[in-house]
Amino acid sequence: MTDFQFKIDARDGRARKGRVIAPRGEIRTPAFMPVGTAGTVKAMLPESVMATGADIILGNTYHLMLRPGAERVAELGGLHQFMNWQKPILTDSGGFQVMSLAELRKLTEEGVRFASHIDGGRHMLSPESSMEIQRLLGSDIAMAFDECTPFPAEKDIAATSMRLSMRWAQRSRKAFGDRSGHALFGIQQGCVFSDLREESAKSLQEIGFEGYAIGGLAVGEGQAQMFEVLDYAPGMLPDDKPRYLMGVGKPDDLVGAVLRGVDMFDCVLPTRSGRTGQAFTRRGVVNIKNARHAADPRPLDPDCTCPACQGYSRAYLHHVFKAGEIIASMLMTWHNLHYYQELMAGMRAAIADGDLIGFARRFEAQRSEGDLEPI
Amino acid sequence: MTDFQFKIDARDGRARKGRVIAPRGEIRTPAFMPVGTAGTVKAMLPESVMATGADIILGNTYHLMLRPGAERVAELGGLHQFMNWQKPILTDSGGFQVMSLAELRKLTEEGVRFASHIDGGRHMLSPESSMEIQRLLGSDIAMAFDECTPFPAEKDIAATSMRLSMRWAQRSRKAFGDRSGHALFGIQQGCVFSDLREESAKSLQEIGFEGYAIGGLAVGEGQAQMFEVLDYAPGMLPDDKPRYLMGVGKPDDLVGAVLRGVDMFDCVLPTRSGRTGQAFTRRGVVNIKNARHAADPRPLDPDCTCPACQGYSRAYLHHVFKAGEIIASMLMTWHNLHYYQELMAGMRAAIADGDLIGFARRFEAQRSEGDLEPI
Repeated sequence: MTDFQFKIDARDGRARKGRVIAPRGEIRTPAFMPVGTAGTVKAMLPESVMATGADIILGNTYHLMLRPGAERVAELGGLHQFMNWQKPILTDSGGFQVMSLAELRKLTEEGVRFASHIDGGRHMLSPESSMEIQRLLGSDIAMAFDECTPFPAEKDIAATSMRLSMRWAQRSRKAFGDRSGHALFGIQQGCVFSDLREESAKSLQEIGFEGYAIGGLAVGEGQAQMFEVLDYAPGMLPDDKPRYLMGVGKPDDLVGAVLRGVDMFDCVLPTRSGRTGQAFTRRGVVNIKNARHAADPRPLDPDCTCPACQGYSRAYLHHVFKAGEIIASMLMTWHNLHYYQELMAGMRAAIADGDLIGFARRFEAQRSEGDLEPI
Repeated sequence: MTDFQFKIDARDGRARKGRVIAPRGEIRTPAFMPVGTAGTVKAMLPESVMATGADIILGNTYHLMLRPGAERVAELGGLHQFMNWQKPILTDSGGFQVMSLAELRKLTEEGVRFASHIDGGRHMLSPESSMEIQRLLGSDIAMAFDECTPFPAEKDIAATSMRLSMRWAQRSRKAFGDRSGHALFGIQQGCVFSDLREESAKSLQEIGFEGYAIGGLAVGEGQAQMFEVLDYAPGMLPDDKPRYLMGVGKPDDLVGAVLRGVDMFDCVLPTRSGRTGQAFTRRGVVNIKNARHAADPRPLDPDCTCPACQGYSRAYLHHVFKAGEIIASMLMTWHNLHYYQELMAGMRAAIADGDLIGFARRFEAQRSEGDLEPI
């Protein structure tokens, strides 16, 4: 795909700083992709998402196929025009959501039959239908249809699941074809078993993808075990393609994963936490509903340049959160996405300076200071 | 109050185009004030409210005294700093809300004792406490504490209620005093009885206020009867002071009231309707939840320059509304506030051109065309 490239500009240990160059714009890596499940990054206008520094967002195939429907989105000019976001969009395959959200699921070699969690309507997701839906949505980066192996899993179960995903990856590649301006990423599975991860990585490379995701992590194994897998899994994937760790994660997860060679991330954590009153800051998490913030004139983070920190006190955020006001979700989400993008920018700069280890140490030291000093 | 002036720049029939000149900024009249009940114009950032063209917003004394509390707001620098809105703020007196929202109400000559609808806590609102709370909030324009006479009312009931409000107006003026940079508006009552309205207007003018509101309308009497009162009530109030019609209204209410000499308005309609899926447009109301919008690629109003109309189809707005996404409230509210401010700007320009009657005719003609043509 000549119009879809990955350039590595700097390396620091296993970490890489680079750019995914796509027709709709460059994605600076390591990159964090805010999640726009149903055609909106919740509580944010697209121009605000852009202002946080996001180069790409993620859309959920499962949600969009059910409502408003992929054909509907296509008729309306595709997902970019539909949701007014002109930069790149990555869509997942629907595989994860169908297994966690849908009802009456039946998984076979062909794919997954299920009932919509919205209206009970019957649907089918398969490698072929997932590729078709992602094509109709018009996403820049599509994901191969896979089964995210549930955790924990016995090794034989994990192997069976992974090999099904590899057959589906082959069918995904065939169904997707080679579409100018669009990329398809394969997804490594294999749970926490290094030989299965190796087998999966080899299968994917034999098929050939424009990028490679690490799937099946952040599913309950905990950070220590996730990092154990990340100590070897990224290195099994091609060095010259972007590596995307799906569904991760907390700020310290991101730092640890970048240190281990991951280039791309997505997670609902900054947006969902914003709506439930948790703010991520350099000094750790602030629970804005806590009564100790009720009279605090200070911002969430005095060093943060986001609109929430520039314009509002913790007391205000506490008040609007307690009052159930929409602006609480708007400001807290904006802050969290800003924080995440600042974290990624900090890591990119540190890699360029050959100081990612130092960055990670300072990151941990500041977090352990905890929130703010008492007034 | 030398630092609080009202200048009339043009007249057209009974309508006036002018400016309330306050230390925090000029309020172009006729003016529409978006309602920011609990320290936020719901679903909007303050900079977005400003972008719609609003020169002033309204805050609700009743809500703010209960949560977060007026002393708390004062400690945090006042309502402007608290909610990050630097232009003028008008606060109501709490009189209307306490009678419509609070529990265990007991109205006496002294004021109203009540229980909070939030936590059941016992409170008192009186002319003196209302003035003190509005002072703590730091609003630019305070309202006298009054009883909004319920509708319908027998004439003797309306007279008794109005005379209580006039005694309270006197106590409000005395408690407020003469505060540099801040104005106090009196409120005319008298239901739909012209002699009571006249008596009320005289009482208020004997006390003397920086502006005069028309209260007790838009409480169920219907537009025809409201306009009957507005045919005479504004003319009873001083010509050289701003006249504020409280809690009004629909777009055609505003046009009719401006024609009758009203300068200021507030209403929850554009914000509340935004959240419930009604958009006001030049061609009438669009109910975005209606299934006929589900595949419509056109904006709410092709002639509107608001972000919702510039960036999004009806199909998108329908989708995010049905999906319960916050962005639906954000975009629909923005559109409605933009529409209201455009309407006011249009009336100001028409008054300057001596063509308000023509404006009103075109306004009605366009509304009667109805929504948009079928695709």
